Amino acid sequence: LDARQLINKKRDGGELSRQEISGLIEAYMGHEVPDYQMSAWLMAALIRGLSFPETLALTDALVASGDRLDLSPLGRPVMDKHSTGGVGDKVTLVLAPIVAACGAIFGKMSGRALGHTGGTIDKLESIPGFRTEVGAAGFLEQLAAIGICVAGQSPKLAPADSRLYALRDVTGTVESTGLVASSVMSKKITAGSAAVVLDIKVGRGAFFRSRGQASGVAHLMQKIGEARGVRTEAVMTSMEQPLGSAVGNSLEVLEAVAALKGNGPQDLEEVVVRLAARLLPLSDLGWDQEQSANAARQAIARGAALKKFRQWIEAQGGDPGFIEDTGRLEIATFTAAASAPRGGYVSGIDTMAVGWAVQELGAGRRRQDDPVDHGVGAVLAAKTGDPVAGGQPVATVYARSQSEAEVAAGKIGAAYEYSDEKALPPPLILE
Amino acid sequence: LDARQLINKKRDGGELSRQEISGLIEAYMGHEVPDYQMSAWLMAALIRGLSFPETLALTDALVASGDRLDLSPLGRPVMDKHSTGGVGDKVTLVLAPIVAACGAIFGKMSGRALGHTGGTIDKLESIPGFRTEVGAAGFLEQLAAIGICVAGQSPKLAPADSRLYALRDVTGTVESTGLVASSVMSKKITAGSAAVVLDIKVGRGAFFRSRGQASGVAHLMQKIGEARGVRTEAVMTSMEQPLGSAVGNSLEVLEAVAALKGNGPQDLEEVVVRLAARLLPLSDLGWDQEQSANAARQAIARGAALKKFRQWIEAQGGDPGFIEDTGRLEIATFTAAASAPRGGYVSGIDTMAVGWAVQELGAGRRRQDDPVDHGVGAVLAAKTGDPVAGGQPVATVYARSQSEAEVAAGKIGAAYEYSDEKALPPPLILE
Repeated sequence: LDARQLINKKRDGGELSRQEISGLIEAYMGHEVPDYQMSAWLMAALIRGLSFPETLALTDALVASGDRLDLSPLGRPVMDKHSTGGVGDKVTLVLAPIVAACGAIFGKMSGRALGHTGGTIDKLESIPGFRTEVGAAGFLEQLAAIGICVAGQSPKLAPADSRLYALRDVTGTVESTGLVASSVMSKKITAGSAAVVLDIKVGRGAFFRSRGQASGVAHLMQKIGEARGVRTEAVMTSMEQPLGSAVGNSLEVLEAVAALKGNGPQDLEEVVVRLAARLLPLSDLGWDQEQSANAARQAIARGAALKKFRQWIEAQGGDPGFIEDTGRLEIATFTAAASAPRGGYVSGIDTMAVGWAVQELGAGRRRQDDPVDHGVGAVLAAKTGDPVAGGQPVATVYARSQSEAEVAAGKIGAAYEYSDEKALPPPLILE
Repeated sequence: LDARQLINKKRDGGELSRQEISGLIEAYMGHEVPDYQMSAWLMAALIRGLSFPETLALTDALVASGDRLDLSPLGRPVMDKHSTGGVGDKVTLVLAPIVAACGAIFGKMSGRALGHTGGTIDKLESIPGFRTEVGAAGFLEQLAAIGICVAGQSPKLAPADSRLYALRDVTGTVESTGLVASSVMSKKITAGSAAVVLDIKVGRGAFFRSRGQASGVAHLMQKIGEARGVRTEAVMTSMEQPLGSAVGNSLEVLEAVAALKGNGPQDLEEVVVRLAARLLPLSDLGWDQEQSANAARQAIARGAALKKFRQWIEAQGGDPGFIEDTGRLEIATFTAAASAPRGGYVSGIDTMAVGWAVQELGAGRRRQDDPVDHGVGAVLAAKTGDPVAGGQPVATVYARSQSEAEVAAGKIGAAYEYSDEKALPPPLILE
């Protein structure tokens, strides 16, 4: 295999065959094709685009690079969920126990912080003792026992995707619909998911800014799911502002607990219920969307989801004490407030800037092997459409030093936009 | 400097500032920017294009990455030549001794095989003992003594270009007008050339397929030359079929010797004379184009060019015995013929395919550190316009095993196109 010819073909707008794509991925994993050739190919693929057959072939090649989890011993379909990434996105922490409390099985391999966004695995690791490495046998056993498990991505599943992902992150080749879709769907296929609901984030805090791009990637993932036997539904939700109020690992866990208690922010609950309404009908419960949405609301109202959450945390070794005593999760102690410079209405929030400000406090990684600080973050007191008085705090930052707190508060304060007339919050569910 | 931002800017079609371009090249040379980020940037630059200010800034950054040769002690202008690369392009081996035999000074730093094309330095290294590393002092001394030197690119001159060039070769990022022009002109500027004639190859075996692209890159190099004080002339010559008959390192050296003896292929001689006619007037001989062309032809006819060739080979440590006894150059011993499947006329040759077939025999490099095999290659017995009988051999391959010979013969055979009516050879000099 001469990688140069495959690079040239894609560079010139050509279409690679299945054999060429699988050969390229195999040679990359065999270290015959070095990173510098793969990144050139990825850039060509991003700019020229990948056809559907190319995207499907790439998905298959990523799947073929490692093991495939066999969840058939469960005898029931396993539900999964994926978000394209946002700021304050703690949806999985609330949705997973709701789905399991409703009687379906929820199993997910999840990712870590990426770019300006947080990662579910980092959030779960805020909980003392919580294990995210459970192994294939442990994953299956826990699903059989309590119907819920969220684990870190296994290094044995789609290892080619893990290597490509790390390379794309540092070479400007993340924002390609074909590369995103094949990456996400290869993980779902290898993890043995029967059905998945995609939360496609759109807007100024998302990787895809426009509805056109977002719906393109959603459609592509559905087509791959259809071709490879994973039932796939997609919901486009707004990332024009952070979801909920909390941004940062421990702070988001606490907000998820509030939501499971019925005291969470309304936008978070709305997204969770909408995703449950699309996901539960793909299970074997025989429910339609309306029955599913009602069941999800009831699971919160009756405490079943919170109970399932506790069971889940305990099953993965976590100390559930923080569920009643929220003081048991460690939060950074230096604080600073961002205040409204004038009276009026919040007319918008530069969500990407809020995400980066929190990542830079230590909630994310600058390099692949950096540790994550679970205790830092921000809580927003005002969101788009809210009236504010001049000088009123709109956000509080939690940091490891006073100066870091003030720097982040400055950035988050600058991310707020104001108007004199009443502004409306952006629509949350886009489709 | 965050390379990701510069990659994204070019990927999205933006224009980099002088500071951004010099910062990128400096960080690359300082190993802060790894190859896999640079290759992504190069691919984005190739597809999106570089503006003239970007191209000039890149040229200056490449020049600034190392030393600049001072040839003023010679007291005379040094002539140089550059080809954008073709198949069977052994022009330098013939032109250099002609120019020196005419009394001008010819000094050139030359490159290695690139993509589907061979490189002058690889060809010269077919000659036992020939040294292509001569050092700055050695270069100057040899020019003063015998008026001719062709050396490998000095690692001290434009080292950033050497690294970029090697990376471009293996990442499909050669065929960019801006990258080609800045690379070529940075080498000419740092090597102290007073004047250069560019052989811009056009057609199906060239990096630039259309006259429009070719004249674009010629114009760009002339603009850079003008801005930085190098007198630059350009000739567009056809690469619709290989130049001459021999393709491969040693085989091309032997064909160059034949040309210097007056027995070379007619197309090779025609290109050499045309380039000499454009280059010699830029020297201090006071000749016009016609005088220059006549002098070049006489240099061959009277044996002066061959004599200068021998002097040159000896000066750089080479054993000149092969000039009389061609058997002294090692040629691979397994052979296979490509034959015409039918009678008629050769109507065209897929020159790129011929180039790749020979590169794949080992005449070029698959990866940066691969060795080159000087003995492999092909000799074409029929060219466009030639009549052939069915079953007649049109090319002979020289390889390291029978199976490799047959694979290459199959590819070269498939590269030939035939027609029933007499076909004309494509025009050789395009402008």
